[in-house]
Amino acid sequence: VDLLTEDELRFWHAWKQASEAVRARVAEDISLATGLSDADFGILTRLVDLGDGALRQNELAASLGWHRSRLSHQLTRMEQRDLVSRGPADGGVVVTITDRGREYVDAARPVHAAAVRVHLLDYVPPRQLGEIADLLGRIADR
Amino acid sequence: VDLLTEDELRFWHAWKQASEAVRARVAEDISLATGLSDADFGILTRLVDLGDGALRQNELAASLGWHRSRLSHQLTRMEQRDLVSRGPADGGVVVTITDRGREYVDAARPVHAAAVRVHLLDYVPPRQLGEIADLLGRIADR
Repeated sequence: VDLLTEDELRFWHAWKQASEAVRARVAEDISLATGLSDADFGILTRLVDLGDGALRQNELAASLGWHRSRLSHQLTRMEQRDLVSRGPADGGVVVTITDRGREYVDAARPVHAAAVRVHLLDYVPPRQLGEIADLLGRIADR
Repeated sequence: VDLLTEDELRFWHAWKQASEAVRARVAEDISLATGLSDADFGILTRLVDLGDGALRQNELAASLGWHRSRLSHQLTRMEQRDLVSRGPADGGVVVTITDRGREYVDAARPVHAAAVRVHLLDYVPPRQLGEIADLLGRIADR
């Protein structure tokens, strides 16, 4: 196998740096505005968007791609801050967003939208938006 | 602030999923072929590419964007596997790749190149490679 050419390496490094930079900048904006971490926001929005406010803990873990022990520790911290509650549900555990959690999600959504625009979408020429979304979708779906 | 439109959301989700999928698939190929984790490979290649085999531990931490305690634990594990060695260097610590570490890097480089091609570059039409690299570079550099 040949090693990457200069042009290929340039693409790869730009891809990695852009991926990491966008992730970190969006997370930072949400954290500064609301105090929610990346993990908090990801969990609260999944509960609302996928479960209408409640999901089984193992479904939530699968959706995040997290190990259950990592999720369990995270949920304990979120319970202590009254963002979610946990309760038994036929053999498993169901995680429910609290009223306070919903207030945080409502406050964070416009911050998230603005951050995604400023840190990512504004860089993409509108004529290329659909074409690049298709390309990214093919990569993600394989 | 308006929430994201359907087209904007589609772009954002495709971006996030593609970023995470490429990172995970490249790391998996390297791990399967060589046993090196993502962190092992990132550290060994930085030592070779940035330091000609050796870097101060705080420079390495800065290059990775890691906290020093995380790096210290990682380096302890890599020392135990004889991939790197650590020693004092005027007031700090210098990390040096071992001969065995170099063998691993040499084995991993072509696997990495092939993985980056299969999981990322092959999806990008050659005529768009430069244009998208420029776009990603602008996002990364801000």
